[in-house]
Parts: sequence; C-alpha cells; structure tokens
Amino acid sequence: MNVGIIGAGKMGSGITRRLIRSGHRVVIYDIDPNASELLVQQGALKALDTQNLAELLPPPRLIWLMLPAGNSTESTLQSLIPLCRKGDIFIDGSNSHYEDSLRRSLMLKPNGYAFLDVGVSGGTWGDEFGFCLMIGGDKQIFRKVEPVFRDLAPKAEPGYAYVGNSGSGHFVKMIHNAIEYGLMQSYAEGIDLLDAKRDEFDIDIGQIARLWTSGSVIRSWLLELIASLLVKDSKLDSFKPIVADSGLGRWAVLEAVNMGIPAPSITSALDARFSSQRSNPLSARLLSALRQEFGGHLAERND
Amino acid sequence: MNVGIIGAGKMGSGITRRLIRSGHRVVIYDIDPNASELLVQQGALKALDTQNLAELLPPPRLIWLMLPAGNSTESTLQSLIPLCRKGDIFIDGSNSHYEDSLRRSLMLKPNGYAFLDVGVSGGTWGDEFGFCLMIGGDKQIFRKVEPVFRDLAPKAEPGYAYVGNSGSGHFVKMIHNAIEYGLMQSYAEGIDLLDAKRDEFDIDIGQIARLWTSGSVIRSWLLELIASLLVKDSKLDSFKPIVADSGLGRWAVLEAVNMGIPAPSITSALDARFSSQRSNPLSARLLSALRQEFGGHLAERND
Repeated sequence: MNVGIIGAGKMGSGITRRLIRSGHRVVIYDIDPNASELLVQQGALKALDTQNLAELLPPPRLIWLMLPAGNSTESTLQSLIPLCRKGDIFIDGSNSHYEDSLRRSLMLKPNGYAFLDVGVSGGTWGDEFGFCLMIGGDKQIFRKVEPVFRDLAPKAEPGYAYVGNSGSGHFVKMIHNAIEYGLMQSYAEGIDLLDAKRDEFDIDIGQIARLWTSGSVIRSWLLELIASLLVKDSKLDSFKPIVADSGLGRWAVLEAVNMGIPAPSITSALDARFSSQRSNPLSARLLSALRQEFGGHLAERND
Repeated sequence: MNVGIIGAGKMGSGITRRLIRSGHRVVIYDIDPNASELLVQQGALKALDTQNLAELLPPPRLIWLMLPAGNSTESTLQSLIPLCRKGDIFIDGSNSHYEDSLRRSLMLKPNGYAFLDVGVSGGTWGDEFGFCLMIGGDKQIFRKVEPVFRDLAPKAEPGYAYVGNSGSGHFVKMIHNAIEYGLMQSYAEGIDLLDAKRDEFDIDIGQIARLWTSGSVIRSWLLELIASLLVKDSKLDSFKPIVADSGLGRWAVLEAVNMGIPAPSITSALDARFSSQRSNPLSARLLSALRQEFGGHLAERND
C-alpha cells in the first residue's frame, strides 16, 4: 500500500523501515529535514512538507502520524485537514490520551475522514521483532488498513488486533504501559533486595537475572533486557537514580482514581518514579524536623 | 544417578518424572503410601519409609526433600540423620526460609553430611518445560549433583545455577517469588482497569491479553497463562476473590523492612492479598463509622 508517515523519530523510523521491507511505498515527512535522510537511503520517499506529502500519496490517502502526543499530534492533524479529502484515513500511532483520540475521531468525521487510534508497543526493538498493535476505531476502516498492520506486527499470531471503538486502541495502550510500570518496578525492587545481600552470599546478580529467564515463573522479555544489562554491569553506577515518567502512567492512575478502582502496585511504581525525581523533598525535611522537635532526634541538615 | 525423593506432591512428582525420563534411578517416599503409586507405574522405586529409602540408595546417598517448608522438612531431615552416613548429600527443594537452610547446613556438618538449598521455580509446568534451579551451598557438592540439576533444568541455557553460599538458593528463590507477587498484581490491576471500560469500548479482554503476548513490552510467561485463562472465560465468575499467600511474599517484605529497603510495589501486592482474605475488616468499619460521626454521612450497616 501507499503509506505516508509523519515523524521520523525512533518509532516512526522503525515503522517506515519495516513497511519498506514488506514492499509498501512509504512517503516520509519530518519537520527536521535531516531526520529522514537515512530512511530515504533505505527506500522511503521524502516529502518536503505536509502539502507535498499529501501530493505524493494517491487518494484515498493513508497517513500515519508518529509524533509526540499532545500539541505536535494535534497541530499536525489540524494542518492536514485542508490538504486532504473525503475518504482519507489518518492513524495516530503515538501515546495520545484516549479521550483525545475519541475527540479527534469525532472532529474528523464531518470532513469524511476516517481515524484509527493505534497503540504501538515493542519500543526500538519493534523494527526487528515486529510491533504489537492495539487498534481502535471503525472496524471497516481497520479492514482496509489491515495489510499494513499485518506487516508491521510480529510474524507469530496474533501480533495486532482490532480492540474496539474509537479511543480503545489508546486506552488499551495506556493500560499496557501502566502494567509495564508495575512489572519494571517489581523486578527493580527484587534486584535491589538481592543487591543488599550481594556480599553476604557472594551473589552474582547478573547471573541470577539470566538464570530466571529460563524456566522460571517470572521469565519475560523485560527480564531478558534486565539480564543483558546486569550481566554486563551489575552495579549500573554510570546511571543516575532518576527515572522519568512519560505520561501514560499518570493517566492510568488518574483513570483508576476517577473510576474508584484500586491499583496499588501500579500506583506505587509511579510514586517510586516521582520520588526518584525529587532530590530534596519537603516531606522528608518536615518528618526529620518533626522527629527532632518532639523526640529530640538530631536531624541531618542541608548546607 | 541414584536419587531419593521424599514427597510425592505436585513438585516432587514432576521432579521424579523428569529424572526418570532422563535415565536416573529414583527411589520415592511419601508419608501417604498411595501418593507414589502413579510414579511407581512410571518407573520409580517405592520406599516404605525413610529407613527403607536409605537402604534402597547406594552410599554416598543423594536425598532430595520436596516437602512443605517448616515442620515437615525439619522433622524429616532430623529423622534421616541417624539413618545416613558421612558423605551423604541432602537437598531441600522446598520454599524454606533461607535462614533455616543456613542453620540446617551448619546442623548437618558435624555428621559429615552435605546440604544444598535449592530454589525450584516452574510450578506444575516444570515437568514439561524444565525447572529453573537456584542452588546454594558448597560448590564442590554442587558439582557432584550437577548431572541431576542439568536434567531437571530446561534444555536452553542456563536453566540452573550455583548462586552462592548456604542459604543463598532459598534467598534468591524468596526474592523470585516476591517479584512474582508484584508482576501478578500489576497484570491483575491492569486487567481490572480494562474490565471497567469493557462495555464502553466493547473490549474483548481475553483477546487483548493474548494480543499483548506477541511483540509487546509486557510479554511474559505469566501473561501467556493469563491470556489462556481469559480467552476461555474473561469474567472468572467461578473464582472467589480471595487470594492465598504462601509465606515467601511475607518473608521478602519482612526482609525488606529489616534491611530498610523500600519495596512498595511488592509490598502493595502482598497487602492486596491480605485485603482479599478479609471480608469484614475493622479498619473499613471504623472509617465508615467515623465518617458518619463527624460528617453525618449515612453508613452502610452489617445485619
């Protein structure tokens, strides 16, 4: 098929390469003209701007936005509206909030545009292994684009799936990422506890992580990544202990709160990242000051 | 090799079958004489009691205890002491506390007995896929028993490993199970959040769990089990929402507290199981009563 991709970052590039290898004709556009050079060498056609992208694609157009969620995705989508025509299909493969995706599908409807919200998992390894695709929107539109999804997904079934109405693709992706927070935190806490006994038991932490990847109940793809990191360097001293959070964890916890559903392990995982981002929290200073005040415990002081 | 197995429960039976298939001679003893009948049909020799077990094994004996941790393991080990002789090797494959294992290795030393503490993961599927073995104790003894470990482990490397001094096998297994608590809880919370939007998005939860097993960042063996459960029955109405905890989760959290190391996701997972076990907690009744007392909110009452 003819596919326009907007955004030549890590994910957009991986998707472009995988589509080209499967024989699709890909037109790529990125706001940074240098970003798509490598992809052009690998067979992509380079568009100079969104108008040029629209010109290079035969209608009905299929345009896949792979941009940061939020303003970039919104403004690009808005800019495409006057350039396209009835029957064109937009895909948002970013980590947009599912309510934005629902709104966008309704916003585009009066123009006769179709919209699919696609949660994409697999990270930078997706180019090689295939991307796990969670697709929301109109099922008939899904069927039209299915050859593209099939080629992007892992060869082993199911790899991709139509999961429900507009918004559901990004809702399912949000929950996927929230689970990822909990899984990562659980492994990390366990490794931290092993580390505490490293000397007492003469433990080789990398070896243990690798051991767990074969046959244990906790084996997983994340554990394989963890093992490959820890086998190389089980102390990770070169990394600062500050963990970013990308938004989906927050949204999932907000959603859980709004629905009144407890999600303690996932929420704890998000809180642990927040704590890691704060080097001098007032809460800890207040507790330390209080202990000194009522218990006479000498508090450690900032300079 | 000649291997004595004490305990013909799920794990002991799986280990026995896998050893027999690999050509080892297995003598099995269980306190329930009927428990080992099936294993005898599959090629195991049945011992009538522990003394008979000792008689049926050529010294130096290798005796693998696969019993519930605690009293069963302790008393059986004690009863074997007068029946064995210097050079015999005992293995505890149960989920014993690592400090008990350290104590037992010291207790057996004056008799000239060797002791290995082996954490065994793989559940009831280990018979088929192989068991992940975390082995603590004397490294020379480990080398002697290695042919047995190699045949019990999955064929793919590493499958089994010597992880450190006495106690370390069960310490590592305890941490493994604590991670398992966090992983299971994280998946369960995510599925609960999906369920809350099941009708709004017309979501097929089993299909989504299955989708995530291919190519997603959260793919794992546990997720494959979850998917196979939910594809068959995505509501699980026949299960009561009460989750047992088997001890290792508690020990790991106690250990984290003793060492002053935060483990919030794992601790939350354990707490979630405790909550599930309590149908009428005083804490919730107190909160409800307090809200009525100071806020005039009408409380729901027990009959």
